[in-house]
Amino acid sequence: MRDAYHEELDSIGEGLVEMARLVGSAIGRATTSLLDADLKIAESVIAADEKVDDLQRELEARAINLLARQQPVATDLRIVVTSLRMSADLERSGDLARHVAKLARLRFPQTAVPGDLHATILEMGQLAQRLMAKAAEVIVSKDVDDALQLESDDDRMDELHRTLFQHLLDDRWQHGIETAVDVTLVGRYYERFADHAVSVAKRVVYLVTGEHADELTPAPTVIPEVTEGK
Amino acid sequence: MRDAYHEELDSIGEGLVEMARLVGSAIGRATTSLLDADLKIAESVIAADEKVDDLQRELEARAINLLARQQPVATDLRIVVTSLRMSADLERSGDLARHVAKLARLRFPQTAVPGDLHATILEMGQLAQRLMAKAAEVIVSKDVDDALQLESDDDRMDELHRTLFQHLLDDRWQHGIETAVDVTLVGRYYERFADHAVSVAKRVVYLVTGEHADELTPAPTVIPEVTEGK
Repeated sequence: MRDAYHEELDSIGEGLVEMARLVGSAIGRATTSLLDADLKIAESVIAADEKVDDLQRELEARAINLLARQQPVATDLRIVVTSLRMSADLERSGDLARHVAKLARLRFPQTAVPGDLHATILEMGQLAQRLMAKAAEVIVSKDVDDALQLESDDDRMDELHRTLFQHLLDDRWQHGIETAVDVTLVGRYYERFADHAVSVAKRVVYLVTGEHADELTPAPTVIPEVTEGK
Repeated sequence: MRDAYHEELDSIGEGLVEMARLVGSAIGRATTSLLDADLKIAESVIAADEKVDDLQRELEARAINLLARQQPVATDLRIVVTSLRMSADLERSGDLARHVAKLARLRFPQTAVPGDLHATILEMGQLAQRLMAKAAEVIVSKDVDDALQLESDDDRMDELHRTLFQHLLDDRWQHGIETAVDVTLVGRYYERFADHAVSVAKRVVYLVTGEHADELTPAPTVIPEVTEGK
């Protein structure tokens, strides 16, 4: 009985990693659809979000089933409850990737992002995808230092977000209001996506240490390949 | 033992109602701070959000403690797990109210919202507060019809959001980019706040029926006092 139980617990972890993998891929593809005005990719991201939602429902059902039948305590209980929260973060991340793709579709065949912001949005998209890949890794590795690292990595997203606003509020902005609205929303989607990746990592910290990540101090470093030469 | 247990379960429900009451008040006050450019109220909303966060942490600790010590099954298990999710919705709603207040503070002594959008933003703020008040009610009453009603009520928020975009994208928009960015974000905050109120209500439906609200059909009515004369 105990064996089937731990298998079930493992399969919840695998479900989370699968969700993280899917939404990481989704944000990368959504960014491509946005910057290339690629309708097909946009449609595929929008359609694929259903798979993420299905996975979440399955995972939740399994977690609740496990609580009811096995009544785990201590660490195991913490794993199940924390998994429920992670799955909510991941489901929401999928929604945000879908929002980006929907904006790409709405503006097709135009591109919603003006040329002088392509580099910033590309970096936001890449960073979002990388943060989610790291989150998936720490779900597996349960490495607290790596998990805490995500919060420092996320500082770069805040910088990029500020860059975006600087462009928007610059007197030389010539792309009109509609594009300003689009860029504002897209910036918000990436920022929130990154927040959810960080949140997943923080929940891993809680899982392992029993303490909330905010009470621990992350290592003060940033992602080198991103900050270089900017 | 059972008595203390049900008391504990009840106290979780009371905690949720208290959270809903606090965030409902917060969004109302945040709207006032935004429209009146009232710095004191803005500051009070920002400060008060800590209380919501504290309540959530307490509530979660109590819920997990209950799972560990009492190992509830069936309906009681559903109540505890659903309460955890509701508390996450409510905590996030509090963040969104704080975002509105922070924007009011950022633009003080100016007001972030131009005069011709005051009525729309006021209605969004009032609707958001009303939706949360209804959500708090259905947490107590567990009335499925009332809970399903929130989703129809939320249609009005979508309409208001569209109105906001129509203003923004109108050729006669004369408030510049910064205000367009502010209005875009504020619109998003209210819309998300309303989504979380609807989500709380849907979780009540799940609690009572064991079915997800999307699988049931809500009554097709709208809030009369809001739609009248618009």
